[in-house]
Amino acid sequence: MKILVTGFDPFGGEKVNPSFEAVKLLPNTIAGAELVAIEIPTVYFKGSEAVENAIKQYKPDVVLCVGQAGGRSVISVEKVAINLAEAIIKDNEGNQPNDQQLKADGENAYFTTLPVKAMVNNIRKHGIPANISYTAGTFVCNNVMYDLLYLINKKYPEIKGGFIHVPFSPEQVVGLASNSPSMPVTMVAKALEYAIEVIVTKVDEYKEAMGAID
Amino acid sequence: MKILVTGFDPFGGEKVNPSFEAVKLLPNTIAGAELVAIEIPTVYFKGSEAVENAIKQYKPDVVLCVGQAGGRSVISVEKVAINLAEAIIKDNEGNQPNDQQLKADGENAYFTTLPVKAMVNNIRKHGIPANISYTAGTFVCNNVMYDLLYLINKKYPEIKGGFIHVPFSPEQVVGLASNSPSMPVTMVAKALEYAIEVIVTKVDEYKEAMGAID
Amino acid sequence: MKILVTGFDPFGGEKVNPSFEAVKLLPNTIAGAELVAIEIPTVYFKGSEAVENAIKQYKPDVVLCVGQAGGRSVISVEKVAINLAEAIIKDNEGNQPNDQQLKADGENAYFTTLPVKAMVNNIRKHGIPANISYTAGTFVCNNVMYDLLYLINKKYPEIKGGFIHVPFSPEQVVGLASNSPSMPVTMVAKALEYAIEVIVTKVDEYKEAMGAID
Amino acid sequence: MKILVTGFDPFGGEKVNPSFEAVKLLPNTIAGAELVAIEIPTVYFKGSEAVENAIKQYKPDVVLCVGQAGGRSVISVEKVAINLAEAIIKDNEGNQPNDQQLKADGENAYFTTLPVKAMVNNIRKHGIPANISYTAGTFVCNNVMYDLLYLINKKYPEIKGGFIHVPFSPEQVVGLASNSPSMPVTMVAKALEYAIEVIVTKVDEYKEAMGAID
Repeated sequence: MKILVTGFDPFGGEKVNPSFEAVKLLPNTIAGAELVAIEIPTVYFKGSEAVENAIKQYKPDVVLCVGQAGGRSVISVEKVAINLAEAIIKDNEGNQPNDQQLKADGENAYFTTLPVKAMVNNIRKHGIPANISYTAGTFVCNNVMYDLLYLINKKYPEIKGGFIHVPFSPEQVVGLASNSPSMPVTMVAKALEYAIEVIVTKVDEYKEAMGAID
Repeated sequence: MKILVTGFDPFGGEKVNPSFEAVKLLPNTIAGAELVAIEIPTVYFKGSEAVENAIKQYKPDVVLCVGQAGGRSVISVEKVAINLAEAIIKDNEGNQPNDQQLKADGENAYFTTLPVKAMVNNIRKHGIPANISYTAGTFVCNNVMYDLLYLINKKYPEIKGGFIHVPFSPEQVVGLASNSPSMPVTMVAKALEYAIEVIVTKVDEYKEAMGAID
Repeated sequence: MKILVTGFDPFGGEKVNPSFEAVKLLPNTIAGAELVAIEIPTVYFKGSEAVENAIKQYKPDVVLCVGQAGGRSVISVEKVAINLAEAIIKDNEGNQPNDQQLKADGENAYFTTLPVKAMVNNIRKHGIPANISYTAGTFVCNNVMYDLLYLINKKYPEIKGGFIHVPFSPEQVVGLASNSPSMPVTMVAKALEYAIEVIVTKVDEYKEAMGAID
Repeated sequence: MKILVTGFDPFGGEKVNPSFEAVKLLPNTIAGAELVAIEIPTVYFKGSEAVENAIKQYKPDVVLCVGQAGGRSVISVEKVAINLAEAIIKDNEGNQPNDQQLKADGENAYFTTLPVKAMVNNIRKHGIPANISYTAGTFVCNNVMYDLLYLINKKYPEIKGGFIHVPFSPEQVVGLASNSPSMPVTMVAKALEYAIEVIVTKVDEYKEAMGAID
């Protein structure tokens, strides 16, 4: 099995993005599955374009995208992405869409095809705070998650896909007057590892049940 | 130089107290100073009694007490303790004081004699979020800090003393429905180490200036 | 024009529900439109059944459902409802669905057909804090909003529908140890009035443009 | 009985200060006591100078100062003020003290001489969220409270004095991207009225017990 994991480049004036910092720390294999880690741009539509290019190049069984959700305290595994772009800050190329549809022929929303409850439970079991989230916002993160699930729905039905939001890293909040919560990147990386571990197990079970040959 | 560092036992239904968990992880020496680490009870007046006993036994130059402040996101270095006990939960022996003075002959409050700004800056310099706090609450933590500074004021003027509050550990918030912030105990221990490092430097400078021989 | 406005009965151990308390305070007409106010049960599927019955009885042009979102600080106008029921507490008849679809033949999500930005702007213009929200949760509120938009989509395309979440009332948080935010029910009622005012204007404009005769 | 109530002028870029907006709404008498309401400047030492001038002019039995605590959700009745000035923003004359003592001959802290628990209880009894706070910060609010209690301690022992912090008004947070909590100024004014009501009763009881003639 092959798993494509993506993180974003820094945005909003930040120097690092904890999503890619954590993704970089992942091992090459988890529970027997091979990992491919890439960085994608925090730019509407270009982020998801990079995901599709990587799908074509690496032909993964699973795509897990990871993004920063500054202000959240815990790992949040996203359940759903919506067909909407709406930004209060500019992305890395200056785009700031206003109430814009992402895909004219897409569903209003797509649910992740990853096992969110099992992922949250396995992360928690290892002592790391995690929750299911029912909104990935309306910025580039939601765009990437939506477009991934749209692609899976339209062109790659055999791929499983989803998204995880991670807190600020401690380095990012050190200088803030406000007492923003944070999580060390090493802990975020472990959480991603436990999430992927359970994804591999579930996808294996599923394929076996389907009679698929991996 | 000798530094006494204290952490509390668990309270409020918790199984661990991140303050002592972190204190246990400290090295035996920091910046040339010898550390003595002890656990004290989360009981009004008995916590501070344990601190005084340790002062008599170990004759430290510095006493740094550490306690849990559930719900806070960052390391908070306390500036001041007040002459008041007021509890909304019971301590570990069932005491729940109501608007009670701690010491009849004590000041209304004592300021820490540790260099709080330098401590916060050194913790932040190493990438760990920290702030000065102007309230240690009115539970056992404030009691221990107040009594320590009272003792220093009345009987041990050569000792420097202070208090640091630390967030919940991730393990403590894993099961919470609310998304409470947390900080890994290993990171808390590093923060304490950076705080102590700067305490040692400042106390050394101070002693040198005073012509003291350590 | 006729507008059906719904609020919920109390749930989760509360004695009042600020949503219906506020709805009760609304005037009989706003900007020339007639209002019909009803209370609906905080019970999965029965809440939305009550909405459909009221649609049949009153034949409204607009349906605005209102619910309590304890812990939120401001009026939040919901943009989207998702095809999912998932509860961490029981509803008023003991139901606690687990990862359950609301409608087998429904879309993954429906966007409100009310003008959320204009509603938020008009509420703010009158000095009341408000925001757009991109998640109505997965409890009975989302169920009612989803089912309303499903009904509109399938059977009542001429009706406009949406949902507003309101904070706790001050009375509800008075006894809480935590410092939960709240908003007076009279202020919530004014916010609803300003939201409805702009709905009436926009629907009027829309109908005129369509050549509809009201 | 005469009660001096003070509110601050706007600071930190705000156009209004809810403390004086609320104070302006108070009636001329509460529970038989006469009220005098004044605005004081948000300037270190000048705020408290204005309080002392008003004490000389009006000879009140009670002084209640009121200030804004942006970000807090509920009315907070302050228990204690500390002998420290430390600012992260400039006051209205550009002062930004750094770890500065307020009074060289003052105590480390003073406790309010107003009945904080009875005040909180009476506010809550009327349905308005309130709590005791154990920190008035280190900006001009703490300065005014500290200097008031210092004055009472040194020169006006017959006066009772204290401080109440109030949330942002809704108008102040309407434009904020963040969802800051707020409380309508009319509700804040009612809370102050209930606080003063109980102060009058308690001071009357106290004077009667002391044999004082009002």
